[in-house]
Amino acid sequence: MQQIINSLIQKNSSKIVLVVLDGLGGLPVNGKTELEAADTPNLDALARTSACGLHIPVAPGITPGSGPGHLALFGYDPVACPIGRGILEALGLGMEIRKTDVAVRCNYSTIRDGAIQDRRAGRIPTEQNRLLTAKLQKAVTKIDDVNVMISAGMEHRFAVRFRFPEALPPDSALIADTDPQKEGLMPLPPKAATGNAGRVAAVAEKFIEQASSVLKNEEKANFLLMRGFSTMPDIPMFGEAYGMKALAIATYPMYRGLARLIEMDAPIVEGGVADEINFLKKNYDKYDFFFLHVKKIDSYGEDGNFEGKKERIEEFDALLPDILAIKPDVLIITGDHSTPVAMSGHSWHPVPIILKGPYVYGGFCEKFSERECHRGELGIFPSVHIMPLAMANAMRLKKFGA
Amino acid sequence: MQQIINSLIQKNSSKIVLVVLDGLGGLPVNGKTELEAADTPNLDALARTSACGLHIPVAPGITPGSGPGHLALFGYDPVACPIGRGILEALGLGMEIRKTDVAVRCNYSTIRDGAIQDRRAGRIPTEQNRLLTAKLQKAVTKIDDVNVMISAGMEHRFAVRFRFPEALPPDSALIADTDPQKEGLMPLPPKAATGNAGRVAAVAEKFIEQASSVLKNEEKANFLLMRGFSTMPDIPMFGEAYGMKALAIATYPMYRGLARLIEMDAPIVEGGVADEINFLKKNYDKYDFFFLHVKKIDSYGEDGNFEGKKERIEEFDALLPDILAIKPDVLIITGDHSTPVAMSGHSWHPVPIILKGPYVYGGFCEKFSERECHRGELGIFPSVHIMPLAMANAMRLKKFGA
Repeated sequence: MQQIINSLIQKNSSKIVLVVLDGLGGLPVNGKTELEAADTPNLDALARTSACGLHIPVAPGITPGSGPGHLALFGYDPVACPIGRGILEALGLGMEIRKTDVAVRCNYSTIRDGAIQDRRAGRIPTEQNRLLTAKLQKAVTKIDDVNVMISAGMEHRFAVRFRFPEALPPDSALIADTDPQKEGLMPLPPKAATGNAGRVAAVAEKFIEQASSVLKNEEKANFLLMRGFSTMPDIPMFGEAYGMKALAIATYPMYRGLARLIEMDAPIVEGGVADEINFLKKNYDKYDFFFLHVKKIDSYGEDGNFEGKKERIEEFDALLPDILAIKPDVLIITGDHSTPVAMSGHSWHPVPIILKGPYVYGGFCEKFSERECHRGELGIFPSVHIMPLAMANAMRLKKFGA
Repeated sequence: MQQIINSLIQKNSSKIVLVVLDGLGGLPVNGKTELEAADTPNLDALARTSACGLHIPVAPGITPGSGPGHLALFGYDPVACPIGRGILEALGLGMEIRKTDVAVRCNYSTIRDGAIQDRRAGRIPTEQNRLLTAKLQKAVTKIDDVNVMISAGMEHRFAVRFRFPEALPPDSALIADTDPQKEGLMPLPPKAATGNAGRVAAVAEKFIEQASSVLKNEEKANFLLMRGFSTMPDIPMFGEAYGMKALAIATYPMYRGLARLIEMDAPIVEGGVADEINFLKKNYDKYDFFFLHVKKIDSYGEDGNFEGKKERIEEFDALLPDILAIKPDVLIITGDHSTPVAMSGHSWHPVPIILKGPYVYGGFCEKFSERECHRGELGIFPSVHIMPLAMANAMRLKKFGA
């Protein structure tokens, strides 16, 4: 379907704003969901005159991670376009990923007499991880013609990015994890499943060798294990797919990284939602499409903090008039998945959406909530339909067939 | 899915009537859509006791042309079964198209010293086009073993049909347009992309040669450009697909042509909707399936004439009792796409549908309108589901599996 959309593109000067309230959807606690409990006069007014509904990022019953959730919002089928774990880890640590790169999740681990004694090196403190990673990066910056970048995560976790001189074939990262998954076993070699992966595996082998010589005198973190070797997914870039220049506005590195994967501009933005909206205003003339990411709603959902999530929704509601004031031709407000406080985590529940545009019915919903959106004109639908609906309302799609 | 349907066919004497109110769906203007504003007591009464819903011809956000819109109603996936531009143009001019044919859209154009000076020959009057086309047809009726038929359109437009002695392989029309798309350039040769297309391209080359010698002394229309070479789509015929003998009742050539593409009988019918209904009555014993096309509703939508579209809907409503009087087992009333007056053109909005049959719930909708149909028992669904739903209600489908 993305190919059909691509063949129908017509450019114009319209602006589309997609606001992602991360983890927006919820479940009732004492009868009311987070959205139902929140006092949201601005969202409610917008819902009354907009197209509303609920969307499903992956499939019914499937709980999406942040990667698939966002890809679906951007119109990419998240099942057909999987993003490797190494890539997601690297993006989350603020690394930039290109078609020349292989990214890998790593653990510091403890080895004794050739066998893995602790796969997580006793979960060393994050601070110690940072010092070790800096030391490692200093010692290993290049392997043959491959640039090596290393970034510390939490506790024993870190990520490595191998940057090759030229774009890699898509099967270049089909390499087995070196983690034997069980203490007492020997680490496995980075075994390549294809010829193209052989080149990357050879670099990984040298990396393990050089890194373990740097780490060998550490008490706990004297070795490392590698998992989730991955390359860029082979997907069209956003600008090429939709004929729109896109700006991502996100304060968390993972979401900027996801946006950069499809070549949205995603400069570092700091501060709260008000700062993000100011950034939107300042750059409004320079782009066609804007992805504005609001993280905190999800964080409180994950923490199981009902009041916290409710208040973050109310905080956004209070700022909504500032977005409406710039009069985008199409404004979408939704989430990338649900994060019900009742579950303290992501869930599979369809995500409520408001699509404000010039060619909608409106008049179906009294307010913005999961249950009201069920009455909305968009019904329950796959998230990948959001982009075509937004483009249609922005008059950016020609007629199909005569 | 069409294959599954085909494997489940059971024949009986039931009758299915599909009424297509072309461009039926609308958008609110001053709070009410065309259907909401229209006074339609008969449609409203029918909606109250029927299955209602909204259907999507191609995909969310995609605006269908008339070809894809009708194919979807007839149960053919419009993305998998694209109809070439040449075929549609020829159908619109009343030509009949078979599997032996290649159809091409043509423009009269002006050439000077080998370069195209005006791609549209100064948009010559339609009357002059008719005279020229008659002259051209008289001079060129056959090229080798290929029959040539030429039909005048509006202003500078016409269509050519090459009829070969036998059915053509599906890649026979993969031939580049000869229109260079820009004035001042030389016309391009009809270049074949495959071996099978080579034979057709050679005929096209001879046609251009012979036609330009007929036209050479014209002041403006002294040359021609060819675009959209196309063959019949490779799709099953209606009778074979559904085991029903079908009659198309349409006053516009394009819709009879679309029906003939899938071998519905589509004799010329003239007059208004009342005449179409009379024709239905007269032929009621001879067919199983009836496609009755009402054009004018779309025409007023395209013109942005709210009152006109509303009145055409009311006109149909007043005639509806005449259709109900013949007591079809299944009666469907819907459109092939929406044509909101607010947009003066086709749109992507889901199309309201009434399906009257013996095995429906009813009781969901107060009246027939886009917003009421949202509450209907059929929900929002792809248009290709209409045929199986109609056949099921007519008891024309066996159980799937044991």
